[in-house]
Amino acid sequence: MRRTKPYVPGEQVNSENLLKLNTNENPYPPSPHVTKAIEGEMHRHLQLYPSPTADRLREVIADKHQLTKDHIFIGNGSDEVLAFSFMAFFEPGQTIRFPNITYSFYPVYSKIFDIPYETVPLQDDFTICPRDYFNAQGGVIFPNPNAPTSLYLELEAIEQILQQNPNQVVIIDEAYIDFAKTSAATLIEQYENLLVVQTTSKSRSLAGLRVGFALGQPHLIEALMRIKDSINSYTIDRLALVGATEAFLDEEYFTKTTNHIIDTREKVTTELEALGFTVLPSQTNFVFVTNEHQNAKRLYEQLKADDVLVRHFDVEPIEQYLRISIGTDEQMKQFITSLKQHLA
Amino acid sequence: MRRTKPYVPGEQVNSENLLKLNTNENPYPPSPHVTKAIEGEMHRHLQLYPSPTADRLREVIADKHQLTKDHIFIGNGSDEVLAFSFMAFFEPGQTIRFPNITYSFYPVYSKIFDIPYETVPLQDDFTICPRDYFNAQGGVIFPNPNAPTSLYLELEAIEQILQQNPNQVVIIDEAYIDFAKTSAATLIEQYENLLVVQTTSKSRSLAGLRVGFALGQPHLIEALMRIKDSINSYTIDRLALVGATEAFLDEEYFTKTTNHIIDTREKVTTELEALGFTVLPSQTNFVFVTNEHQNAKRLYEQLKADDVLVRHFDVEPIEQYLRISIGTDEQMKQFITSLKQHLA
Repeated sequence: MRRTKPYVPGEQVNSENLLKLNTNENPYPPSPHVTKAIEGEMHRHLQLYPSPTADRLREVIADKHQLTKDHIFIGNGSDEVLAFSFMAFFEPGQTIRFPNITYSFYPVYSKIFDIPYETVPLQDDFTICPRDYFNAQGGVIFPNPNAPTSLYLELEAIEQILQQNPNQVVIIDEAYIDFAKTSAATLIEQYENLLVVQTTSKSRSLAGLRVGFALGQPHLIEALMRIKDSINSYTIDRLALVGATEAFLDEEYFTKTTNHIIDTREKVTTELEALGFTVLPSQTNFVFVTNEHQNAKRLYEQLKADDVLVRHFDVEPIEQYLRISIGTDEQMKQFITSLKQHLA
Repeated sequence: MRRTKPYVPGEQVNSENLLKLNTNENPYPPSPHVTKAIEGEMHRHLQLYPSPTADRLREVIADKHQLTKDHIFIGNGSDEVLAFSFMAFFEPGQTIRFPNITYSFYPVYSKIFDIPYETVPLQDDFTICPRDYFNAQGGVIFPNPNAPTSLYLELEAIEQILQQNPNQVVIIDEAYIDFAKTSAATLIEQYENLLVVQTTSKSRSLAGLRVGFALGQPHLIEALMRIKDSINSYTIDRLALVGATEAFLDEEYFTKTTNHIIDTREKVTTELEALGFTVLPSQTNFVFVTNEHQNAKRLYEQLKADDVLVRHFDVEPIEQYLRISIGTDEQMKQFITSLKQHLA
């Protein structure tokens, strides 16, 4: 039996009173069109298998990016898409590279699929230095914006990394891209070694539905399909398929809620700075903050005692930082009120 | 990149006129309690991640089998449960054993996870001979009832296989067990090497929701959890979780629809026998039939031209058989009518 150290997701505490700012969920419900579509579908054919190829959803996503459905792969959350990508594109014996501070699932995938990896330290300001990722033996993966740092890497830097890894797949994990600047999906036609992974769990308010996707040239998408079809013919259920499709069709709702979160983020940033925090310039739906006069772990625990859950990573060099998801304006007011009471 | 030959599921043709008797789906919709629960849940917290441990559903399933939730693992369809089981319990270099005529996903899993396998020919009457599975090097897997043969193996034979493989995991894939006699789940407390895999896709009318599960002693369930948590923290969405839970709670509806399908199966068997077919004694929601005066492939094609889709496997020694899913009484009447027109 394989013994691996699994990924530990943010705490999922079942308390209705809890202010949950620890797993970067969207504070707003999905578009009303999503629930309407689910309601229609649930009376239709729940006893029949869903589409194994998810063509309609792929077309809708492709349209957003001026691509065709052959450029889109759908998976059960971006975690499954990432796992399948490790299986499809990274090889035992070929060392891949990712940052030392990043999504903590990457080393877990590496271990379970026997992929050797080296972690590259972030620069002192927590940014990614593109040169560090040139000529990677087995491939490259990192999130953009990176998590938990919240920092965005410009596309010029990503292009350099793509150019300097012509024979390796470079995976850009864009879970938070809709709260940031331009997606690397705009580079897909130019780079056959680029795979972009996105999710509906953050900006589309569908963490509860489990729909992630990858964008890339058709030869990469075919490789992912081959893995999926060797593991599970039908990974996305009927309700998730129609729900996710509607989430992409209601662009107005998406723009409104996303912009609202960005506005709230900027307000919270100003307030935290006024309280003496250093707030990294976030391009995500969370902020990553530190305060030289406050102990981060103590603050985390004191907030938790107040039923305010944020995320603290007890590892160097980020042990003095807190990651705080952006909720509604009202939730962030409650967070700031609680925080103020605990400042030393 | 890994090159594997993926599993090919039954054709999913999108035609409203089609009589689809080719993928063993349930002809009846799920319990009304299922849709009611989904309706409630979809207005609740779709923007929040689902439970990563699916505790409530595990408890409900455990109750049905007089087990505890530590004996239950939930996955995205039984295909995912089977894939994770291959990863957790079978090892590269240790040859596993399964029948030559069986669920065609097993060789696909074996190849993608580098598990060597040997296929054991069924006996002439298509039954499984327990002795053939004694002392398997790496483990054993087969469906009970077997597919596509529809034949059930008695628990005494399964116990012999368990006893003669004390250090290997024996996986009994019970997708169709609710249309058969006793489940091997009744043996779990006695055999620490037994994993039973079931699904909601057939008897619970939830193929469209993707919920499968495994039953076994806690050490086996923990191993599956470790694999899951190394690939995808949240594999079952919120709607599928509540829907599947209600499907298990509405025992009356389940019994009624299951018994109806069994009744229809027996009627269809009699009719097919009257038409000169040999019908294997099915313990599933399909029948596996042959007729020495008819060419199976020709019949399959002629039925298809009539918009009646059944399944034909163009491989020896079953190339003269058809697998026909049991639909409603009305659907089976339509099937028989179409079939009669094509008998040579």
